[in-house]
Amino acid sequence: MGKETEFVKEIASKEKDFSQWYVDVVRKAELADYTPIKGCMVIKPYGYSLWENMQAGLDKRIKETGHQNAYFPLFIPESLLKREAEHVEGFAPEVAWVTQGGSQKLEERMAVRPTSEAIICSLYSKWVKSWRDLPILLNQWANIVRWEKVTRLFLRTTEFLWQEGHTVHRTAEEAEEETLKILFEVYQDFIEKELAIPVIIGRKTEKEKFAGALHTYTLEALMTDGKVLQAGTSHNLGQNFAKAFNIKYLDEDQQEKYVWQTSWGTTTRLIGALVMVHGDERGLKLPPRVAPIQVIIVPIMFDKTKKEVLEKAEEIKAILKTNFRVEIDARDEYTPGWKFNAWELKGVPLRLEIGPKDLSQGQVVLVRRDSGEKITVKEERLGETVEEWLDKIQENLRAKAKEFLEENIREVSDYNEFKVVIEEKKGLIKAYWCGKGDCEEKIKEETKASIRCIPFEPGENSGTGRCIYCGKESSTLVYFARAY
Amino acid sequence: MGKETEFVKEIASKEKDFSQWYVDVVRKAELADYTPIKGCMVIKPYGYSLWENMQAGLDKRIKETGHQNAYFPLFIPESLLKREAEHVEGFAPEVAWVTQGGSQKLEERMAVRPTSEAIICSLYSKWVKSWRDLPILLNQWANIVRWEKVTRLFLRTTEFLWQEGHTVHRTAEEAEEETLKILFEVYQDFIEKELAIPVIIGRKTEKEKFAGALHTYTLEALMTDGKVLQAGTSHNLGQNFAKAFNIKYLDEDQQEKYVWQTSWGTTTRLIGALVMVHGDERGLKLPPRVAPIQVIIVPIMFDKTKKEVLEKAEEIKAILKTNFRVEIDARDEYTPGWKFNAWELKGVPLRLEIGPKDLSQGQVVLVRRDSGEKITVKEERLGETVEEWLDKIQENLRAKAKEFLEENIREVSDYNEFKVVIEEKKGLIKAYWCGKGDCEEKIKEETKASIRCIPFEPGENSGTGRCIYCGKESSTLVYFARAY
Repeated sequence: MGKETEFVKEIASKEKDFSQWYVDVVRKAELADYTPIKGCMVIKPYGYSLWENMQAGLDKRIKETGHQNAYFPLFIPESLLKREAEHVEGFAPEVAWVTQGGSQKLEERMAVRPTSEAIICSLYSKWVKSWRDLPILLNQWANIVRWEKVTRLFLRTTEFLWQEGHTVHRTAEEAEEETLKILFEVYQDFIEKELAIPVIIGRKTEKEKFAGALHTYTLEALMTDGKVLQAGTSHNLGQNFAKAFNIKYLDEDQQEKYVWQTSWGTTTRLIGALVMVHGDERGLKLPPRVAPIQVIIVPIMFDKTKKEVLEKAEEIKAILKTNFRVEIDARDEYTPGWKFNAWELKGVPLRLEIGPKDLSQGQVVLVRRDSGEKITVKEERLGETVEEWLDKIQENLRAKAKEFLEENIREVSDYNEFKVVIEEKKGLIKAYWCGKGDCEEKIKEETKASIRCIPFEPGENSGTGRCIYCGKESSTLVYFARAY
Repeated sequence: MGKETEFVKEIASKEKDFSQWYVDVVRKAELADYTPIKGCMVIKPYGYSLWENMQAGLDKRIKETGHQNAYFPLFIPESLLKREAEHVEGFAPEVAWVTQGGSQKLEERMAVRPTSEAIICSLYSKWVKSWRDLPILLNQWANIVRWEKVTRLFLRTTEFLWQEGHTVHRTAEEAEEETLKILFEVYQDFIEKELAIPVIIGRKTEKEKFAGALHTYTLEALMTDGKVLQAGTSHNLGQNFAKAFNIKYLDEDQQEKYVWQTSWGTTTRLIGALVMVHGDERGLKLPPRVAPIQVIIVPIMFDKTKKEVLEKAEEIKAILKTNFRVEIDARDEYTPGWKFNAWELKGVPLRLEIGPKDLSQGQVVLVRRDSGEKITVKEERLGETVEEWLDKIQENLRAKAKEFLEENIREVSDYNEFKVVIEEKKGLIKAYWCGKGDCEEKIKEETKASIRCIPFEPGENSGTGRCIYCGKESSTLVYFARAY
């Protein structure tokens, strides 16, 4: 046991130092690491494989809802970025600028894309001519650069990976429908079903919306330290960019009209959410649907029986491989106990142990990462048991996260209580808000809690109450939280 | 017929103006287009879907040969890029430099990656400690920036997409084995089987090798205008980067040793090769294995029977969809003839026509893009016939390209003849070369033909002859060509 405890000691206590625990897990589980470039991370193979599985789940949904992928330039000339006033104001402070190409100083400096509305809209203005050209439903997988002062692996880095959708529509109604379709059918469906993360959904306030949008919808996830993380956003851009970039179409009635647009994105931040929602003192817990390795086979090797055990392990791997992502850890230099810890840290959903005794009895031992539950399974029932257990683990992770979320939403009507709750209990606070930016800002200044969203749910906003800050009567009930 | 001829007129004649034909096909087939950013292209959905299919074929082979994907930073501090002297000398003239982040001037300017050896090696120097850490077998899918003066869609653009492999080995033998494995098992296999493009394989000369490599292997493909395009390269880096970046490991014998490395890449240039190898006067011809649409269904619609024909088309699509990439073109505003041309231009391998007469006879008409061959197929045999024909088209494209390549390799032993052949017939010239850079450079200056590679094939280099330029006796027979 000595060595096993030692191993777990490599990561800080989640209970005592969440922030250090997070960094330790990300690094020791080999998801990502620091680089010599300030604020830029390297996504290591295990983390990238997780991202590939996430991409597959998102890309499938993006395509099923009628979108196609394309690729637009990395660089955006300053003049293009400046076209939409709110947009440039929002992004200029965090832009990396290219000013030299080869030995030549550029006449106009170019932004390394902080988001692609400007370059894409400049092209859409050429592509769109008639109502027959609409809608345009495109998505791009790309790298993004934002010059951040304080960075954290996955959560806030100078460069990150994402998908960004950019669509063009004939009517305001179509654009709004698209914005909501992405929110629910693509993002919520993906995040809840694949990542097992429940989300709170709603609209952002004017202050928190995307720079240049008419309004922004968001999906907010609660981390186990009580802080909230924005998991995805879907923006209704209205006609703001259409007017700034002159994107017009000739309608059936022979009138020239400005188009209506949307944009929407999710990023490698979601990997950070996975760590912080499901992880525990022993490390990562990955939902089976996106786990790079779903089953890790640890052969229990003694000198005498090593050969047979390894052969059987390979045989089992070959069988499971047709339906599952499975690997064998046959390293000689580590004890089984060390390996158990190592793969728990990496969050592999199921461990399969096989030793000489199991061999003679035609069975293996399965251990669940989420609950620690252990069973002996006859070889002939292995395939179906693995499938069943992976489903159970996926569902259990989701249920636990859902329970935690529900336990940590508190309705508060007194500002002093608000301050105590946000400081001591954290989580989400539901409170009435008068709708004024002043109150919103004061609350943020005084408590570090921001309005995460104005929810949709019918009935939710049907009552009235007093603004948690100024006391003015209001019918708007919103979610507050401290956020990543 | 008037309208159909008109349509084809939208692209220049391949025979008369190959260069304009290429640009027309790329743009009108909607593979890619220009953007307001000098030298940067937008890859449009049809082109990107083609790239996704190519990525899938390459990624599968890269993973099957034991590699994993990862993601490294876009930015490389100048000091890192400068570590390996030949490397920086090779790339510095074409680097885009970031000099400002937000409102701040950077203390050290950063290159937007022109290739990632420098940043990756700086991390490998931290990751590699013991012989147990080796080999490291990583690949990255990423965007790359090289400040090009003259650009052409896909062939040479300021930004392009690629994969770059970077591996670390314990011995020189292992590194060489890896370099060759990538060359043959990954690149040649992919390019010949999926893209139906035959390649000439060999080693680059000192002058043409990758900046910083020990030696570079290359795959060269012949375009139908007689110029050659480098389709992929695999570099044995030796210990050059290991020494520059101090990448050492403690070997089993307790000695510290420098590692041996490789790097290798293929890019979106391959899309340009597809256009130029298989295309004809009517536009693209895509190999079925990577075609975004393998079968285009064109319903022949008359007012009276339109409904039934469309229903049948949808029914056929639903059946074919389980095994093939299939779409219906049901647009009202275009004639069938116009659609035939449009999908030929886009290179869709098979056209499926269905009209009222076919309906009553339980049959459809299939037309091959590559040969124009047309057959009537009974509905019940449709699935197998489509599969069979797609295989035939794939094979026919490969065979035609192979034939063209073989017809355009000429052995020449006299320099005057060399000049005439390269000017009038183009293609590849096989000639002896003394091995001196002087002769190589003079030939390039005088004929624009460079040495594409020194081939491997046994026997190929077994004879001797006189250097085509200086006349010195030599046993090195090489391939010359003008290149993209």
